[in-house]
Amino acid sequence: MNKIVYLDNNATTKTDNGVLEEMLKYFGEEYGNASSQYTLGMNARETIENARSKIAGILNCMPKEIFFTGCGTESDNIAIAGTARRYKNKGNHIITSAIEHHAVLETVKRLGKEGFEWSIANVKENGIVDLDHLKSLIKPTTVIISVMYANNETGAIQPIHEISTICREKGIYFHTDAVQAAGKLTLNTKELGVDMMTLSGHKFHAPKGIGILFKRNGVNVVPLTYGGHHEQSVRPGTENVPYIAGIAKALEIAVNDMEKHVAHIAPLKEKLKRRILSEIEKSTLNTPDESVCNTLNVSFSGLEGESMLLSLDEYGIEVSTGSACSSGSLEPSHVILAMGRDHLTAHGSIRFSLSKYTTEEEIDYTVDRLKEVIERIRRISPYK
Amino acid sequence: MNKIVYLDNNATTKTDNGVLEEMLKYFGEEYGNASSQYTLGMNARETIENARSKIAGILNCMPKEIFFTGCGTESDNIAIAGTARRYKNKGNHIITSAIEHHAVLETVKRLGKEGFEWSIANVKENGIVDLDHLKSLIKPTTVIISVMYANNETGAIQPIHEISTICREKGIYFHTDAVQAAGKLTLNTKELGVDMMTLSGHKFHAPKGIGILFKRNGVNVVPLTYGGHHEQSVRPGTENVPYIAGIAKALEIAVNDMEKHVAHIAPLKEKLKRRILSEIEKSTLNTPDESVCNTLNVSFSGLEGESMLLSLDEYGIEVSTGSACSSGSLEPSHVILAMGRDHLTAHGSIRFSLSKYTTEEEIDYTVDRLKEVIERIRRISPYK
Repeated sequence: MNKIVYLDNNATTKTDNGVLEEMLKYFGEEYGNASSQYTLGMNARETIENARSKIAGILNCMPKEIFFTGCGTESDNIAIAGTARRYKNKGNHIITSAIEHHAVLETVKRLGKEGFEWSIANVKENGIVDLDHLKSLIKPTTVIISVMYANNETGAIQPIHEISTICREKGIYFHTDAVQAAGKLTLNTKELGVDMMTLSGHKFHAPKGIGILFKRNGVNVVPLTYGGHHEQSVRPGTENVPYIAGIAKALEIAVNDMEKHVAHIAPLKEKLKRRILSEIEKSTLNTPDESVCNTLNVSFSGLEGESMLLSLDEYGIEVSTGSACSSGSLEPSHVILAMGRDHLTAHGSIRFSLSKYTTEEEIDYTVDRLKEVIERIRRISPYK
Repeated sequence: MNKIVYLDNNATTKTDNGVLEEMLKYFGEEYGNASSQYTLGMNARETIENARSKIAGILNCMPKEIFFTGCGTESDNIAIAGTARRYKNKGNHIITSAIEHHAVLETVKRLGKEGFEWSIANVKENGIVDLDHLKSLIKPTTVIISVMYANNETGAIQPIHEISTICREKGIYFHTDAVQAAGKLTLNTKELGVDMMTLSGHKFHAPKGIGILFKRNGVNVVPLTYGGHHEQSVRPGTENVPYIAGIAKALEIAVNDMEKHVAHIAPLKEKLKRRILSEIEKSTLNTPDESVCNTLNVSFSGLEGESMLLSLDEYGIEVSTGSACSSGSLEPSHVILAMGRDHLTAHGSIRFSLSKYTTEEEIDYTVDRLKEVIERIRRISPYK
């Protein structure tokens, strides 16, 4: 197979051809600044507001509750730091979970330096947040809770509805980083009961460099940046019209075709899981049953994820050892450790994340090469 | 003339075909996450670092002094708020000028709410910063000065080298918002003597949604956002590979072809200026001789900029009444007012901003239609 088998769709995705096509005319033809008052500018404004309305329809919210940002990290930061700073007179305590993305964990730690207290909810062995522990952490001063919707490393789906119910009872703002959920789980903000939600274009076949923040009307934030009145002054800066048109198109495709894509991807993940567990010795699953359709995380005892990754790359197979944002780090995954696995198991974990473009042939090819690679490494490994 | 005559290139520009071409393969082919360790990821990393090196060469600095951001506003905010917060123990006083973009002015005002003091340097009648006044504002606690390189509304070139010399003598950090200078003036950071400099892609034929921050090695900032280690943790978030490749290409074109473009644009602006001043009564210049080649700002006594703008739009001519970011506001331009003009003169100002795509035919067409429009409005105006 003389091509790339891309199984790292939780790191980033290929931009959909339809999305690219949607964006093209906004570069060299309809290139107006949406703040300008003449025709070219008004056309740009219309493109942005149409995109916003389309997204609002999908998320079941009002257009004015949708904010375009530069990335998921920025959306997470605006939501968590913005809310905490805005309501610090109400309370200075923040709760998040042990398995969050760095964009959440590092933001919370930063707030710690500003005088906020924070607590980390444990996850159970299956990688799902321990609701009893989370509840026990709540104080009268808790002002915001941020728990992700689906974990990027294991795919574990978190009990968002349950947490939002707790938050509503206690009058605590609730944010979820839903970047791994788009196209895989419902994004209906009313059903989920969230106050804020982060989406990132490049996780669902829009380009890198565009994020969405859903922020419920009535929740206010201190902005991170100051300038013009773009995005209700929550995120100033000339709007990225091509990517805004693109992310709306990508979300529309992801949500409209979700059933079809899940029906395609889920059996491929099942086959991948079944073949790995039955054909490769000492492989243990880090992904629970309650997981998104496309993510499978497996530990191979006594092996290092990084050497497997590099060997698979020689066959054109692209997988990861965890979050792309922490790659290059020698630290084992904080997510796998939080599940109670030991360091060796965490070090030997590989994440496979499929997409609508993944084929059965690619899955079989991957398992076949993985078996070869593991056999070769185990033959020379000191741990054998 | 059945087409758009786009004379608002200070608001935004058309993406160059060569830039678009440069970007295309990073959407659907080379779509890797630059943090990933396999081939597709390493290719993305290489693309980014090549772009960074190319830009560093143009700005005469080290690659590690170049940071990619989501927009000019973000670069301004990181530079000013980041430096002020980082060095607040050194001093809590900030100086900027009366004619800055909102991305600078609003950031400085925000810092005022955090306990910083700030002072505003006046400009002279020609729209150029009054250096004596600026010097008189400096205190032992002054930690950062931010003065733009070329004004967006008038095109007035500011004495950056002089200000950087003052700053170096006094040990004050110096930032310049150079978004209107790219492709028009030297961007050599060593010659300019700046510590930090902001560029914005969409002002020089790259797309909207990408900015550059030059930050001299040794100047440290408190980041605005937290997450992964992208851009040396100064600006975390998965890198926008297509736009990064695009902005490097656009800057290369803008700087390499600067002489040619200036030789094309400057005579067109001269003709525009000459014809307006000689053929339209009661027109006064707001643009000084020391201005970038493409910008001409003129006030038409007794007229409202907005009604001229809308009338010209009917002829397909796109001009503005000031900064796009403040358009829609009924306030007269703070830049024109700072030059000592009265409210009526400020209200009657029109900005023409040309580009390498502007033709002489377009300039003549614009003046001809402008004359008609002004004659018509003056006929019905109560001010006549």
